[in-house]
Amino acid sequence: MSTFQENLEKLADLAIRVGLNLERGQEVIATAPIEAVDFVRLLAEKAYEHGASLFTVLYGDNFLSRKRLSLAPEEGLDKAPAWLYEGMAKAFREGAARLAVSGNDPRALEGLPPERIGRAQQAQSRAYKPALEAITEFATNWTIVPFAHPGWARAVFPDLPEEEAVARLWQAIFQATRVDGPDPVAAWEAHNRSLHEKVAFLNAKRFTALHFQGPGTDLTVGLAEGHLWQGGATPTKKGRICNPNLPTEEVFTAPHRERVEGVVRSTRPLALGGQLVEGIWARFERGYAVEVGAEKGQEVLLKVLSTDEGARRLGEVALVPADNPIARTGLVFFDTLFDENAASHIAFGRAYAETLEGRPTGEEFRKRGANESLVHIDWMIGSMEMQVDGILEDGTRVPLMREGLWVI
Amino acid sequence: MSTFQENLEKLADLAIRVGLNLERGQEVIATAPIEAVDFVRLLAEKAYEHGASLFTVLYGDNFLSRKRLSLAPEEGLDKAPAWLYEGMAKAFREGAARLAVSGNDPRALEGLPPERIGRAQQAQSRAYKPALEAITEFATNWTIVPFAHPGWARAVFPDLPEEEAVARLWQAIFQATRVDGPDPVAAWEAHNRSLHEKVAFLNAKRFTALHFQGPGTDLTVGLAEGHLWQGGATPTKKGRICNPNLPTEEVFTAPHRERVEGVVRSTRPLALGGQLVEGIWARFERGYAVEVGAEKGQEVLLKVLSTDEGARRLGEVALVPADNPIARTGLVFFDTLFDENAASHIAFGRAYAETLEGRPTGEEFRKRGANESLVHIDWMIGSMEMQVDGILEDGTRVPLMREGLWVI
Ligand SMILES: [Zn+2]
Ligand SMILES: [Zn+2]
Ligand SMILES: [Zn+2]
Ligand SMILES: [Zn+2]
Repeated sequence: MSTFQENLEKLADLAIRVGLNLERGQEVIATAPIEAVDFVRLLAEKAYEHGASLFTVLYGDNFLSRKRLSLAPEEGLDKAPAWLYEGMAKAFREGAARLAVSGNDPRALEGLPPERIGRAQQAQSRAYKPALEAITEFATNWTIVPFAHPGWARAVFPDLPEEEAVARLWQAIFQATRVDGPDPVAAWEAHNRSLHEKVAFLNAKRFTALHFQGPGTDLTVGLAEGHLWQGGATPTKKGRICNPNLPTEEVFTAPHRERVEGVVRSTRPLALGGQLVEGIWARFERGYAVEVGAEKGQEVLLKVLSTDEGARRLGEVALVPADNPIARTGLVFFDTLFDENAASHIAFGRAYAETLEGRPTGEEFRKRGANESLVHIDWMIGSMEMQVDGILEDGTRVPLMREGLWVI
Repeated sequence: MSTFQENLEKLADLAIRVGLNLERGQEVIATAPIEAVDFVRLLAEKAYEHGASLFTVLYGDNFLSRKRLSLAPEEGLDKAPAWLYEGMAKAFREGAARLAVSGNDPRALEGLPPERIGRAQQAQSRAYKPALEAITEFATNWTIVPFAHPGWARAVFPDLPEEEAVARLWQAIFQATRVDGPDPVAAWEAHNRSLHEKVAFLNAKRFTALHFQGPGTDLTVGLAEGHLWQGGATPTKKGRICNPNLPTEEVFTAPHRERVEGVVRSTRPLALGGQLVEGIWARFERGYAVEVGAEKGQEVLLKVLSTDEGARRLGEVALVPADNPIARTGLVFFDTLFDENAASHIAFGRAYAETLEGRPTGEEFRKRGANESLVHIDWMIGSMEMQVDGILEDGTRVPLMREGLWVI
């Protein structure tokens, strides 16, 4: 077997054993782009080897999406397969595991009318809600595993021939997901242990704020009341541990939407709507980004930030050591799963209920200071020149990162 | 465009316009083997051109089925995606059209343990029931359109290289579905008119029985009380006309389960469980096949006929002129959609509610004399040497077919 084929099998195996932590006899529902048929077959084989009872896959096809967005009658775009997503939600709540194969062509919908795309996506989001809720509530074990889609590879390596681009992207995926070493399962156990130690330390401290100091950055991020740090393997409601993201490098929590002050600069490009946004800077006053700009791609950034009032406030703050395997690839992946995990980051927009004690919703969510918005835009602010302190209630500072690396 | 590509497009167009008779704004739910991706894309394009709002496709994959049947834990085989089929049933009842792309490898499951296959298929049938009911009740418009699956082509043309076999099978499909002429839609209008004339004639006569006379055949098939002849385009419950089968050549109705007498011989091979059964003969007394045999494949035939008491009684009698486009291909297709439409046939096993006035179920279904069974096995008895008469209540005979062709 070639090294490539070995790594591919190790990734599939990791997705089933560590990502899903599949239970014997469990059903698996997979979603994947149609280009991933061979990788899906490998995943199914590993799933059955580990005792899956039934592996069902639903393929998406950009070709069909493009045809629909070009040809379907205007009102027809309000349709979405609610029957399918309701069924998936039911299956998740009854114990089926969810395996998402990610990786797509960021230019898949290029040239199509934005208002038609928007209309279709809105209907899609509405219909998908029951399934998404079951997933974000961890009603069942789930994971996202990357696949080197040719369209994705073209975006990451625009100057290479497609075949070489795909091979290079797989290499980067193997590195980022730690399957290029001899024992990926053991590597993930160690990695999860390390993330959980950080989470335990940070949660025990009950910091009122974090302070980021670096070139162009002097930012104090107040934390939401009863914030919870999260990271790495996560238990489902029924207590089964899964790794929802392959890769993952971050520990993250909820900022207070009105207690962010100072200035901050991005350290890595951000892929947004198929474009690169670079050199982002912002100045916060009482949680609101009163000034925002970017050296490149400012227009698309400001457009997204005009979505609602919450789009200019923070919904996430995440710490990622600057020497992690994703950062070491030196690539921009045009994919949040990778790019946000390359460096410490903050996110404009919506906060996650799981980063608050008791996962509150509605009024209680707001009362804690957690931010609400339709958007969630992670942007990277960490680097080897970044210092991060935790600030205790009495004002004491606890050094967390020095020169971009953990010191706890 | 090549003739081949033209015919393929005409077939896709026919499936949407005549098979489904798609309504503008209607949703389409397609099922297809994974090998049919390109053909499915063509179907989706035609569907959107004719106003579909949303085209969702669910792919089956023999590779996954084989892995499951080899590797899944024994009890795991009792699982089936009920959540998916319940969703489909709901969608059909709410107006989604059903497009089935047929064509598969008859040897797909070869070499796998029969008891495991049986266990999985039983769970599958049970879970699929709600969807099947919506389909057979014509809750919505539906059609089955053939696709030249490589595995299917290998079975039909075992001596040809695969590529040539696939091309030859497509040729036969184009011929059988009447898309090789200049205007397939017009050809189907004429064909449906002709089938409906036969149906109207036969229903007006209220025959008590049919009599088949040919080499080795002297068979009287009593018809169920309040039997209805069916054939060609069919209205849904909401009155939309669709063509559920592409191709279709038959007009058919329900025999009386206790009023079949005489002897009968098959005229074409029957594909059963991946095997060919040839030279079938049977002798009926009071509806029951007291003697059955076959020159080839007798074992598999008798095994199926031992399923239940109804398996040795008739559930369908169908008239097909012997000069039809499917018969003219001279092929055995290993596919009921084609093979049963090549010649007049009878079926061991279950009768269809749609072939009885008022579509009765349960007690009333039995009272009319309609047959019940878990199986339905069509076998071909028509040829250019077959004479068929209808017998009126007073014993008068009406010639229906002479030398295999309609005389009405
Ligand atoms: Zn994050
Ligand atoms: Zn985020
Ligand atoms: Zn028939
Ligand atoms: Zn039949």
